[in-house]
Amino acid sequence: MRTRLHTIALLLIWGLVSPWTFSAHAEVDRERLLAEPGIYGTFAVFDLDDEWGRLEPSARIARLATLKGVVEQHREKVTIDMYLLRGLSDHADVLFRIHATELRKSQEFLLDLRSSQFGKHLKTAGVMHGLTKKPNYAPGFPEQMKADLKTVSEPGEKPYAIVIPIRKSAEWWGLGQERRAAMMQEHTDATLPYLKTVKRKLYHSSGLDDLDFITYFETSKLEDFHSLVLSLEKVKEFHYTRQFGNPTLLGTVQSLDEIIETLAQ
Amino acid sequence: MRTRLHTIALLLIWGLVSPWTFSAHAEVDRERLLAEPGIYGTFAVFDLDDEWGRLEPSARIARLATLKGVVEQHREKVTIDMYLLRGLSDHADVLFRIHATELRKSQEFLLDLRSSQFGKHLKTAGVMHGLTKKPNYAPGFPEQMKADLKTVSEPGEKPYAIVIPIRKSAEWWGLGQERRAAMMQEHTDATLPYLKTVKRKLYHSSGLDDLDFITYFETSKLEDFHSLVLSLEKVKEFHYTRQFGNPTLLGTVQSLDEIIETLAQ
Amino acid sequence: MRTRLHTIALLLIWGLVSPWTFSAHAEVDRERLLAEPGIYGTFAVFDLDDEWGRLEPSARIARLATLKGVVEQHREKVTIDMYLLRGLSDHADVLFRIHATELRKSQEFLLDLRSSQFGKHLKTAGVMHGLTKKPNYAPGFPEQMKADLKTVSEPGEKPYAIVIPIRKSAEWWGLGQERRAAMMQEHTDATLPYLKTVKRKLYHSSGLDDLDFITYFETSKLEDFHSLVLSLEKVKEFHYTRQFGNPTLLGTVQSLDEIIETLAQ
Amino acid sequence: MRTRLHTIALLLIWGLVSPWTFSAHAEVDRERLLAEPGIYGTFAVFDLDDEWGRLEPSARIARLATLKGVVEQHREKVTIDMYLLRGLSDHADVLFRIHATELRKSQEFLLDLRSSQFGKHLKTAGVMHGLTKKPNYAPGFPEQMKADLKTVSEPGEKPYAIVIPIRKSAEWWGLGQERRAAMMQEHTDATLPYLKTVKRKLYHSSGLDDLDFITYFETSKLEDFHSLVLSLEKVKEFHYTRQFGNPTLLGTVQSLDEIIETLAQ
Amino acid sequence: MRTRLHTIALLLIWGLVSPWTFSAHAEVDRERLLAEPGIYGTFAVFDLDDEWGRLEPSARIARLATLKGVVEQHREKVTIDMYLLRGLSDHADVLFRIHATELRKSQEFLLDLRSSQFGKHLKTAGVMHGLTKKPNYAPGFPEQMKADLKTVSEPGEKPYAIVIPIRKSAEWWGLGQERRAAMMQEHTDATLPYLKTVKRKLYHSSGLDDLDFITYFETSKLEDFHSLVLSLEKVKEFHYTRQFGNPTLLGTVQSLDEIIETLAQ
Repeated sequence: MRTRLHTIALLLIWGLVSPWTFSAHAEVDRERLLAEPGIYGTFAVFDLDDEWGRLEPSARIARLATLKGVVEQHREKVTIDMYLLRGLSDHADVLFRIHATELRKSQEFLLDLRSSQFGKHLKTAGVMHGLTKKPNYAPGFPEQMKADLKTVSEPGEKPYAIVIPIRKSAEWWGLGQERRAAMMQEHTDATLPYLKTVKRKLYHSSGLDDLDFITYFETSKLEDFHSLVLSLEKVKEFHYTRQFGNPTLLGTVQSLDEIIETLAQ
Repeated sequence: MRTRLHTIALLLIWGLVSPWTFSAHAEVDRERLLAEPGIYGTFAVFDLDDEWGRLEPSARIARLATLKGVVEQHREKVTIDMYLLRGLSDHADVLFRIHATELRKSQEFLLDLRSSQFGKHLKTAGVMHGLTKKPNYAPGFPEQMKADLKTVSEPGEKPYAIVIPIRKSAEWWGLGQERRAAMMQEHTDATLPYLKTVKRKLYHSSGLDDLDFITYFETSKLEDFHSLVLSLEKVKEFHYTRQFGNPTLLGTVQSLDEIIETLAQ
Repeated sequence: MRTRLHTIALLLIWGLVSPWTFSAHAEVDRERLLAEPGIYGTFAVFDLDDEWGRLEPSARIARLATLKGVVEQHREKVTIDMYLLRGLSDHADVLFRIHATELRKSQEFLLDLRSSQFGKHLKTAGVMHGLTKKPNYAPGFPEQMKADLKTVSEPGEKPYAIVIPIRKSAEWWGLGQERRAAMMQEHTDATLPYLKTVKRKLYHSSGLDDLDFITYFETSKLEDFHSLVLSLEKVKEFHYTRQFGNPTLLGTVQSLDEIIETLAQ
Repeated sequence: MRTRLHTIALLLIWGLVSPWTFSAHAEVDRERLLAEPGIYGTFAVFDLDDEWGRLEPSARIARLATLKGVVEQHREKVTIDMYLLRGLSDHADVLFRIHATELRKSQEFLLDLRSSQFGKHLKTAGVMHGLTKKPNYAPGFPEQMKADLKTVSEPGEKPYAIVIPIRKSAEWWGLGQERRAAMMQEHTDATLPYLKTVKRKLYHSSGLDDLDFITYFETSKLEDFHSLVLSLEKVKEFHYTRQFGNPTLLGTVQSLDEIIETLAQ
Repeated sequence: MRTRLHTIALLLIWGLVSPWTFSAHAEVDRERLLAEPGIYGTFAVFDLDDEWGRLEPSARIARLATLKGVVEQHREKVTIDMYLLRGLSDHADVLFRIHATELRKSQEFLLDLRSSQFGKHLKTAGVMHGLTKKPNYAPGFPEQMKADLKTVSEPGEKPYAIVIPIRKSAEWWGLGQERRAAMMQEHTDATLPYLKTVKRKLYHSSGLDDLDFITYFETSKLEDFHSLVLSLEKVKEFHYTRQFGNPTLLGTVQSLDEIIETLAQ
């Protein structure tokens, strides 16, 4: 049943969105935005409204075509990753992770998303922003650790994504850089066994929202991810964490077309 | 009156759901999923929307048939237990406990549930995940305690189920394994008098949601369960608990048909 | 104006509910349920929905007849006391206090209440459960105090009821029974001057919800009740209380007919 | 434009409410209720629902006439003061301050208010109760301070009203009366410079809601009021305050007719 | 597409609002209100309701004309700055910052705004007030610091605005003025490197809402703003901060016409 609906949906969507997809959009330099420091990451979490579930399939598909249109259009300026949270996270159906050199560009995408026929069914569940920066403590780590940290995560699909917002205590920031570095070395040491199976990315948030950090993970082995978090709870630095999660966002990585297919149901 | 409605409902439902129930679905290995380590347990709590109460009985029954269909269909891949929370828990009508070898399978069930005609009336009240693991501290317990822990709970109906989410403090995780083991021995000792009347199952949650553990209980004697919790509040390990409940979920164990019968009213 | 509506309402209601009230329902042993240990008390708080206020008086009266029906029907198995909270408590219009030998019986009443035409207008504001038990510390109190505690509250109407949920700290439970008993004696001493004008009943909740105790009071002198609480805040035991109220429920004791009359307006 | 609407509204209202206003209602002894100890003060905060804004002006005026009717009718038994919070406080449009010798009388007013055509548009944002009592610590203050406290606030309009709910810590109540009195003397000393421009009234709440005190202020100089609060934050007694505000209610004092005129817009 | 809609919108709006805009409104002395002490600043945050998204473009434009009318009309008495929060802040679409010599004037603007056809679609997300005052600690700072503080922020567009509400602990206020001044000097020292790229304005809130301060920032370099906040988290004074953000409001500075253009979409 899924595949049949899939076909219908895709036919319709590709037809409907032609005005946008026809003109070959230049895509923003995705590699650069995902790897470099000084880039803003926005995590926008949405719930679908009650009306969505009551729409006729054809109406849903027409609205999803506008989602596709907006995403395609803004991919010239920002990178957009999508995650399906429904069923795995509280009060949250979809997550958009947006990378941009300027937060204004992410706002423009989100404004157009909200104004689209699809966006009218979205209710904001939360939005968080962070900045990528050069490693803070790593330069002082022992050479062996620095070498270990270069471990590349195993290739292959990593279907699960987890986002954990973090806020540190005033005590943490009050410690000198040296004491913080020592604790971060212990923290980093605990993460080494999981570098292969858990991909990690860090965003700095102080002042941009009510957090200090947003930590983003991808894995195919949730059990490993669980063990990693357990290890991190046992190091000294964790005593200086005053928010960890709340919410913890857990979802599955999806392409735009997969999201559309699922939401069309 | 209940029995008459019951009959009508069941007749209609069995008729309506025939396309699914006709083909004999192979059921997932329920015994294994409920007993082994390395299994993911999902607790999905829902509230019925206001419209549900205003539906005609026939419309309710038609929608409940889609619940039956989705549950039957997914029982090939996940185990599904159901609980009626309405009247016993805050803002929660139904609880689904799902066991799967992969959280993606639980997500797929919940996605199909939400997309069904019945699911359109569900509002998510919360979702929690945990992983079953081999006992952490038990291997070091005295032989007598290990023997005691093999006590099987008394046979017979255990109509009540209770779910208590738990989060430990940073101090707890900062203690060495040995000190934690000593306190868990005292904790376990307090549970021994209740092994016969209170069944217990533990899920490890760190990183999968905002909890460290989900504890699940079944009993026919709520008074014994109350005494058990009181005993656990008195041991030293409880000082390191920073969330216990909030929410405490209390409900009655129900078969799919019982849930359908109750919600048809 | 009230009396005229009253008459119409009662005429209609008694007419409409005759199928239930005709057959003389045997009532559960109310005295026993309200006095003995081992009884479950449920406090279910509801808000009326916005639609209620917009119903025609005749529609309201027809729906209230279903309330009367459900209450009468279940009085065979549980005791049901009713309180009007509207105007005195936040986000809460009506409180049902239910006593039963088994929580399942209270659930059955609440399920039928919610399924009734009246119940479709109720929104759950909260539900709490507790168990009555034999006095914990009193056996060790001095003889004079034991004698004082036998003081019966003054006869006569006690129009106000107050429900205060309580949660103790881990420190409290970690103290030995002896130290807790000593503090409870000081606590009890503070209550003696108010035994005549403030009636009190205690429910033990640990494990049944997110509380340790539910305290229930009736009085005609709210000023005395205020003084009693003030006295209790001044004893040492209060330092070990981590939740006191939140919510404090304040309402007026009402008969079923009085509730119906008020809600018919 | 305001004045024209004003005239129309008042004409209609005086016409519509004649059945009530015609019979000269005896007013409760307002002076006594506002000055004596042993009086209950209720602060009921409401939000207008979304429908209110969409009503035709004539419908709004007809509904406001029922507000006028209810207020006039109950002024025989309780005093009613009104405040416009919209624009100055969160999620709150109107505040009613009610004084009565018995809380039942305040409940009766609020029940009739909620049942009125106007009341159907009100959503309760909160309700708090307190009791007026004789000064607790003042009798022990130095003579000069006692004399200073007799300062009467300057005559003239005091357009702003502020309500700050307060809860003290267990530590506060655990201090002896003497130590509390010494700190309250320091507290009182800090208030002396503001006696002329800031009027103050205290209500004792323990047990009647989740507060210990409700403090009520009137002023024409908000800057003075700000300085007063700043002074009170600097005295030792403030360390024993565990809730101060949350919510702080800020509004403008209004007559019934002014409230009606504003809400008619 | 944006520009075409822009033109239509503006044509319609200027036509529709002529009754107001025709008569040349004298504007309040904006410079004075934004620079002097003793001025009240109100931050009113709104969410657009679900209906807004479903309105026809022409209906949206007609309603936005009433926004323009109200703003123009009140600019005689208060200054009004507008910010677009949608996409950057949680549950908040638009922020109005209002400066007035009296809070009543800000209330009058907000009352008229809420009563307008546009205002009926606004849901209050929050409102905060603060008072501008002469610098508290600066007079005692070293001469060099005083000179540094005169640094004017670089000219040019500062598209981002951030509002961070702050509440200090009782301990902070309990410290003597001298110790607070010493810590504020360290705090101020941390801000010096950012004076050029981050504009800052301080409002004192104690007693006017549940805060002690509202801090307002404008910048074109969010990365600098992030670094500034990080520096402020590291000084001793931060240990005495018990609320910082919650919510942090982040948005883009917009003219009335820009807001109208965006919301017309």
